[in-house]
Amino acid sequence: MSEIHEECGVFGVFAPEVQEVAATTYYGLFALQHRGQESAGIVVNDDGIFRTHRDAGLVNDVFTADRLQKLGTGNMAIGHVRYGTKKTGGRENAQPLVVNHLKGNMALAQNGCLINGYELRSELENEGCIFHTTSDIEVIAYTITKERVKSRSIEQAVVGAMHRIKGSYSLVVMSPSKLIAARDPHGLHPLCYGIREDGAYIVASESCALNAVGAQKIREIEPGEVLMFTKDGLVSDRTHCGQEKRMCVFEYIYTARPDSIIDNCCVHDARRRAGAFLAEKYPIDADIVVGVPDSGLDAALGYSQKSGIPYGIGFIKNKYIGRTFIAPGQSVREDKVRIKLSVVESVIRGKRVILVDDSIVRGTTSARIVKLLRHAGAKEVHMLSSAPAFLNPCYYGTDIDSRDNLIACHHSVEEIAKIIGADSLGYLDLQHVKYLDGGDGTGFCCACFDGDYPTEIPARTQASRFEQKISTNPKFQNKN
Amino acid sequence: MSEIHEECGVFGVFAPEVQEVAATTYYGLFALQHRGQESAGIVVNDDGIFRTHRDAGLVNDVFTADRLQKLGTGNMAIGHVRYGTKKTGGRENAQPLVVNHLKGNMALAQNGCLINGYELRSELENEGCIFHTTSDIEVIAYTITKERVKSRSIEQAVVGAMHRIKGSYSLVVMSPSKLIAARDPHGLHPLCYGIREDGAYIVASESCALNAVGAQKIREIEPGEVLMFTKDGLVSDRTHCGQEKRMCVFEYIYTARPDSIIDNCCVHDARRRAGAFLAEKYPIDADIVVGVPDSGLDAALGYSQKSGIPYGIGFIKNKYIGRTFIAPGQSVREDKVRIKLSVVESVIRGKRVILVDDSIVRGTTSARIVKLLRHAGAKEVHMLSSAPAFLNPCYYGTDIDSRDNLIACHHSVEEIAKIIGADSLGYLDLQHVKYLDGGDGTGFCCACFDGDYPTEIPARTQASRFEQKISTNPKFQNKN
Amino acid sequence: MSEIHEECGVFGVFAPEVQEVAATTYYGLFALQHRGQESAGIVVNDDGIFRTHRDAGLVNDVFTADRLQKLGTGNMAIGHVRYGTKKTGGRENAQPLVVNHLKGNMALAQNGCLINGYELRSELENEGCIFHTTSDIEVIAYTITKERVKSRSIEQAVVGAMHRIKGSYSLVVMSPSKLIAARDPHGLHPLCYGIREDGAYIVASESCALNAVGAQKIREIEPGEVLMFTKDGLVSDRTHCGQEKRMCVFEYIYTARPDSIIDNCCVHDARRRAGAFLAEKYPIDADIVVGVPDSGLDAALGYSQKSGIPYGIGFIKNKYIGRTFIAPGQSVREDKVRIKLSVVESVIRGKRVILVDDSIVRGTTSARIVKLLRHAGAKEVHMLSSAPAFLNPCYYGTDIDSRDNLIACHHSVEEIAKIIGADSLGYLDLQHVKYLDGGDGTGFCCACFDGDYPTEIPARTQASRFEQKISTNPKFQNKN
Amino acid sequence: MSEIHEECGVFGVFAPEVQEVAATTYYGLFALQHRGQESAGIVVNDDGIFRTHRDAGLVNDVFTADRLQKLGTGNMAIGHVRYGTKKTGGRENAQPLVVNHLKGNMALAQNGCLINGYELRSELENEGCIFHTTSDIEVIAYTITKERVKSRSIEQAVVGAMHRIKGSYSLVVMSPSKLIAARDPHGLHPLCYGIREDGAYIVASESCALNAVGAQKIREIEPGEVLMFTKDGLVSDRTHCGQEKRMCVFEYIYTARPDSIIDNCCVHDARRRAGAFLAEKYPIDADIVVGVPDSGLDAALGYSQKSGIPYGIGFIKNKYIGRTFIAPGQSVREDKVRIKLSVVESVIRGKRVILVDDSIVRGTTSARIVKLLRHAGAKEVHMLSSAPAFLNPCYYGTDIDSRDNLIACHHSVEEIAKIIGADSLGYLDLQHVKYLDGGDGTGFCCACFDGDYPTEIPARTQASRFEQKISTNPKFQNKN
Repeated sequence: MSEIHEECGVFGVFAPEVQEVAATTYYGLFALQHRGQESAGIVVNDDGIFRTHRDAGLVNDVFTADRLQKLGTGNMAIGHVRYGTKKTGGRENAQPLVVNHLKGNMALAQNGCLINGYELRSELENEGCIFHTTSDIEVIAYTITKERVKSRSIEQAVVGAMHRIKGSYSLVVMSPSKLIAARDPHGLHPLCYGIREDGAYIVASESCALNAVGAQKIREIEPGEVLMFTKDGLVSDRTHCGQEKRMCVFEYIYTARPDSIIDNCCVHDARRRAGAFLAEKYPIDADIVVGVPDSGLDAALGYSQKSGIPYGIGFIKNKYIGRTFIAPGQSVREDKVRIKLSVVESVIRGKRVILVDDSIVRGTTSARIVKLLRHAGAKEVHMLSSAPAFLNPCYYGTDIDSRDNLIACHHSVEEIAKIIGADSLGYLDLQHVKYLDGGDGTGFCCACFDGDYPTEIPARTQASRFEQKISTNPKFQNKN
Repeated sequence: MSEIHEECGVFGVFAPEVQEVAATTYYGLFALQHRGQESAGIVVNDDGIFRTHRDAGLVNDVFTADRLQKLGTGNMAIGHVRYGTKKTGGRENAQPLVVNHLKGNMALAQNGCLINGYELRSELENEGCIFHTTSDIEVIAYTITKERVKSRSIEQAVVGAMHRIKGSYSLVVMSPSKLIAARDPHGLHPLCYGIREDGAYIVASESCALNAVGAQKIREIEPGEVLMFTKDGLVSDRTHCGQEKRMCVFEYIYTARPDSIIDNCCVHDARRRAGAFLAEKYPIDADIVVGVPDSGLDAALGYSQKSGIPYGIGFIKNKYIGRTFIAPGQSVREDKVRIKLSVVESVIRGKRVILVDDSIVRGTTSARIVKLLRHAGAKEVHMLSSAPAFLNPCYYGTDIDSRDNLIACHHSVEEIAKIIGADSLGYLDLQHVKYLDGGDGTGFCCACFDGDYPTEIPARTQASRFEQKISTNPKFQNKN
Repeated sequence: MSEIHEECGVFGVFAPEVQEVAATTYYGLFALQHRGQESAGIVVNDDGIFRTHRDAGLVNDVFTADRLQKLGTGNMAIGHVRYGTKKTGGRENAQPLVVNHLKGNMALAQNGCLINGYELRSELENEGCIFHTTSDIEVIAYTITKERVKSRSIEQAVVGAMHRIKGSYSLVVMSPSKLIAARDPHGLHPLCYGIREDGAYIVASESCALNAVGAQKIREIEPGEVLMFTKDGLVSDRTHCGQEKRMCVFEYIYTARPDSIIDNCCVHDARRRAGAFLAEKYPIDADIVVGVPDSGLDAALGYSQKSGIPYGIGFIKNKYIGRTFIAPGQSVREDKVRIKLSVVESVIRGKRVILVDDSIVRGTTSARIVKLLRHAGAKEVHMLSSAPAFLNPCYYGTDIDSRDNLIACHHSVEEIAKIIGADSLGYLDLQHVKYLDGGDGTGFCCACFDGDYPTEIPARTQASRFEQKISTNPKFQNKN
Repeated sequence: MSEIHEECGVFGVFAPEVQEVAATTYYGLFALQHRGQESAGIVVNDDGIFRTHRDAGLVNDVFTADRLQKLGTGNMAIGHVRYGTKKTGGRENAQPLVVNHLKGNMALAQNGCLINGYELRSELENEGCIFHTTSDIEVIAYTITKERVKSRSIEQAVVGAMHRIKGSYSLVVMSPSKLIAARDPHGLHPLCYGIREDGAYIVASESCALNAVGAQKIREIEPGEVLMFTKDGLVSDRTHCGQEKRMCVFEYIYTARPDSIIDNCCVHDARRRAGAFLAEKYPIDADIVVGVPDSGLDAALGYSQKSGIPYGIGFIKNKYIGRTFIAPGQSVREDKVRIKLSVVESVIRGKRVILVDDSIVRGTTSARIVKLLRHAGAKEVHMLSSAPAFLNPCYYGTDIDSRDNLIACHHSVEEIAKIIGADSLGYLDLQHVKYLDGGDGTGFCCACFDGDYPTEIPARTQASRFEQKISTNPKFQNKN
């Protein structure tokens, strides 16, 4: 029910011999589907020949049995699921990107967002380069191939390109004979790898995708690391390692799947810990704790366990509402939330309810959910957010918009409580958020909450948060 | 994750004036989607003109914006979602059925299964009647139109037909000017109605569909009742009322949605009660109680609340796996369960786990789930079924198959525990199942558990459970 | 470019053993596609099991490789292509119709139109029968199954039913073990059969479909004949033979394909003969004769050959314009004819042109074509119709509408010439039309030209030409 | 029925104000559909914003009403239909290509084939450039944008790029504010423009597309000319003009539509002239002249008119066989020609037939057509080709393959006559082919007949006719 969109998931497989790598990638993307539902793509590497299919839609829609069949077998494949953030969506921008260059084919897929994408694109355009997409991945591809001309190998070209590209990126790159995984020096988004019994290496944004294909997780790709898989084994390049780790803390709160383990901390546990922190800070006298499905459930259970207030199943989420859901009819249209979410009235009626959700962005969804509870007879509704208040935009790929749309930038907590109709409102504490992984309070980017960005934000990018509104406007005149 | 399929859901709307009844029915069918995912259909009555669309697929697939648009507006509509049980599926058998007869158009949709369908069909065939489908609904349509020739009204024809048709049926019937709802004399499946603020009456299999369209529930249609909605108001015919009520208890355990209220008992509460009964009967010494999503969650919470053993979120269900999910690849194919269901390892590892599921049919799914838990490090796994053991086939529409496929018909509880790999196994007690609604222990059909059928089973039908296997065999020779 | 729509084509195959009868039928329907482009269907009989697919669309659209595959093999199949005439179109009315009855399955397909369909339907409805379609074929199916109850065999039932059904019908009927072809006693539409080298019998509306599947034509099915194909050979029932033959003469002029041979006369030759008759009657002083593609070409050649005036290829028809052609854009929309038909200007400029088309119904298309020629620089345009003027509606299946829409009912030849912008206008002579087959002037129904109907027209049917306008109106109230 | 595939058609519209340019382009592409049936695309320029849709399929398939709607209005648009020649087909290579570069957007579409495409691509790759397609158009786009960096305007960049690209190209290029049409210095393929009453300029491969959208042809774009359309009017750049004109003569024989006028000669007339030349050279004693539809009809008429031997309509071409035609069934598969082409037996039986087709490539189709005539009872069959014998491959876009597949490279005329089963065989004379336009025998490329190529053929390209076979082989290893 969240108003925030995830961005992307990447997947790669390197098998010791030709096998059904398309099927493996398909299962892996299924497990990563929660990271992006706008488009999906797979590239199979059959001894140097790349076969690609990518399109707008869910993994299930994009890959029919027939389509998978046509991808054939191979010993490598990479895949991608995507949610369009800043840039325009659609079929053209679906990844992985496949390009031909001096040394043959290359396929790439990225989770993340460059902060100097605009500048690099401008430089390339000044040399007469053409762009087919508006996506960062094409800028990355160019930067790598430009390096490739003067490098001895594709992995050196990737390492070289990483001197130039800045921002967040968890990358999988496939050449005719190699699979490469690379993570930006701050490790803003997760990326891990594992191995299957048959010797196939798997790279994925989250460990849940390793489990889905029967692989055992080995470890995270480290921030700045470039890991290369070839017939001769693994090689790790650590040229860009050693900078401060700053992983997006929102991965724990919302983006990642509860059963994924990131840096030895299970996401479900991190969320229960968020609930427990909330119980400490907000010891509310209530009858029941309910979470908004699906991402509020873990924190609600954590609150219940810490506080001793009973956990309740207060909502039924209609699981048949897909992305193609249409909302016809004048009278019903306004309340899509009611179609997606039903209250179990007998659980709520007459109760003082603690309602836990993952975050509050604009507040409109929260307001509707509180209204549903009131309508079902809740005596009191205390809303708790398992994230701190959003106060700053994100430049690294999470769709946290400009301050204009962030309710917490314009209203006090009390005002927001009133706006959403809750009896009280609480946020996860800024101090607590850094300890969600049970660690020492370091290693996170919490910039959307505290404004402490791990990288410089180039003037152009800061401005362009707003300019973009113009440039994607179909009426913008780009005269020659 | 259940191996049992639901059967059908029906919906009807009678509005005081022309409005977007197709949209209303669409939302209603969405809320009933859990009762049938094989086909969906809507018939709109626009002042006597019927516009129909029905096809195989989910509501979302069958009704695009364009299709709904073409159905137009009207003052009445009926809809249906279906899971094929005994008879063959496919587009041809999608409901509602629309027929032309002496007095004009008629549209019908049914939840249930006739026990004398074969006999009635034979009689009609002996008169030279032709059948386009293999569905009971066509037999019901004929029976009503035969009555209609000698009746004064459509409602009299329905009442008359109910003397002839036997078995389970929650019916909605639409004539050019009337909407009729009828429920079999034992009330084997639920059917209720309500009213919206704009004066539109809504009939639906479950109250969750009334909520979805903003209607207030008035009451259940009573067993045997025929309720007619016309411009002049409601008329209830109680000719067939007064027989023993015997509603399918499995509606509470599995079929109905947790937020639906049937006979004043919320389904979620009934399921938690099942969990509490299990806690009483099986006071296991364990560390955590987890339910198999989605239908085992409520009973798991009930067990936890009664026993004091902590409730855990032990599984993540992949919500993106639709009906069109394909399972490519030799190596992975065998374990579809792993793709659909992931264990949250940190919740399970090292724990003595109580695992609650709604029922055990063949045991194969249970075995795989237990294996997942073992693999994730569970120390003990105690499996509890919130239904008693299935020992008898169902003749009323629930897809509980012949004894051949029911594991409990062939093995003791201890044997089954061993087969599925559980440390112990328990079933809801046969005495407890009748009290799931918090009532006096009467009013239920529990035949699949105790063999006490509310109707006679005609010789032909009993036999045909097996003969059918032959008759649907494409190689069966039906020579003329 | 004609304004008249064909109605239907039927096809059947009876093979000595199981083979790819679906593929055979597919090719046959392809060759009959010109007789109906609205829907297509095939039923395969696999040892008594019927597998069916039918839908709205061209043969090519309805039958994908996958769909044909699913129909499987068998030793019999029937097929149908359809153009909706009086009754509503759509998927529901696609043929063949498949019904279950007392003696098993039956599949039927018809080319033609009953004149007592309304009466038979009313009788059946009075017995409480239900109808799923508004098509005559369902009335025929009922009439046969009603006979079947008291008959010894399906063929006797067909012969029996033919005492009751009146009008035009070329029928193929398939029972679990027999294929039956029947033609109405006047033989209003063609129906022939042949044999292939492998011993398979083929029945088809036109001989071009026999050629397409490699069969040799044996002969026409005679008017009133019922021909039955079984494992034991052919049986002909001639109970209904001996009435006056009255085949639709418009089959020669427009409906049939030029390479088909009907009653030993090639359709192409009949059309050239029409052109020759026109040359006799209208010895125009002109420079060139051009035909409107495709059905005016043969007659234009006939005129040229008789008159000695050079034959020209004056038009290019855009062969890529399918039924799904959309005509977007305000400015261009009005002139769809220009998109479909281009003039070869160099052939026309400065010439006195004789323009031959198959018929003139409303005159609007003719007017546009004449205008195209004028625009291309024609000095004179003399329009000739290879059919006489339409003065009467057709009750037997050809879409010649009520007199309201027939321009010749309301205007003199001179007036029509002026309306369509031609310098002169001529029609095939009523006396000549009966000699198109090179015969003795008998054996034709020319009712649309001369009003001499071969059957009585029941009062209801005559009226209903107009009433129907109401009954298909979606606003018509059919109250109960 | 030809074995030769056309290559491409381009279209552009520049309107004085915003209007339905997508609809105009749609109609234009319809008229050019014969030039390419593999993919279609339209780019609409709405005040600098480009909206694109392109996909594999016919214009009718690719552009639904909905798709056209989404393209919206604008004051410019370009479109393309394509048949894949040397390079791989599919969605990725569909044109127009749209790229972003230093100065904004650019859309391009080409009819033709570069001879130095491989070299230019290699140079660009050496600079680190990436390629998304294997199409020449991407090489052209790069070459233009490289020029653009140092040019004052887009038109200068196009003129500059033309110094580098070599081969055949009829180009339309669209910048945010300009439409540019350019034709290679030899004018290998046609390109013309015209104006509509509303002041909109239209550029198209053939004049038939101007007619289709109601435009009046002004003139051909001259070989080497760059014509720019802006708000301020037309500007012609003639930097590359003045080289020898060498238009592909096969445009008159086969590629272009009969109603198109190229260089003041109507294509239909050129074809009739071919027939007349054949009649002069081969004065055969026969009863009838028939053409193979559609492209043999005009020449057959020309032969008939010159010789006095009657013209006959000998074949019916099944117009419902689209590109999606499947050929199921073992027994029938081998003779697809029979499904597509039927003989009008009464025209052929007992006759000495002169059969005219546009060309003979491999001879297999000709052999089947001759066989159909023999089967229909032809006494003699004299085959005439309205093209000379193919002896050389084409490097400029027409799909005339390597000598391996050209029957005339390996057999004498007598041998070929025997192979295809004809009593005699004749080809259009090499001397005559240069006079098809009624001109002075200059201005044509007849290289496929006489080996006189208008440009040098770079060593790489000559070789690559064969190497390509390897490089498009999915098993070719392109190792990094």
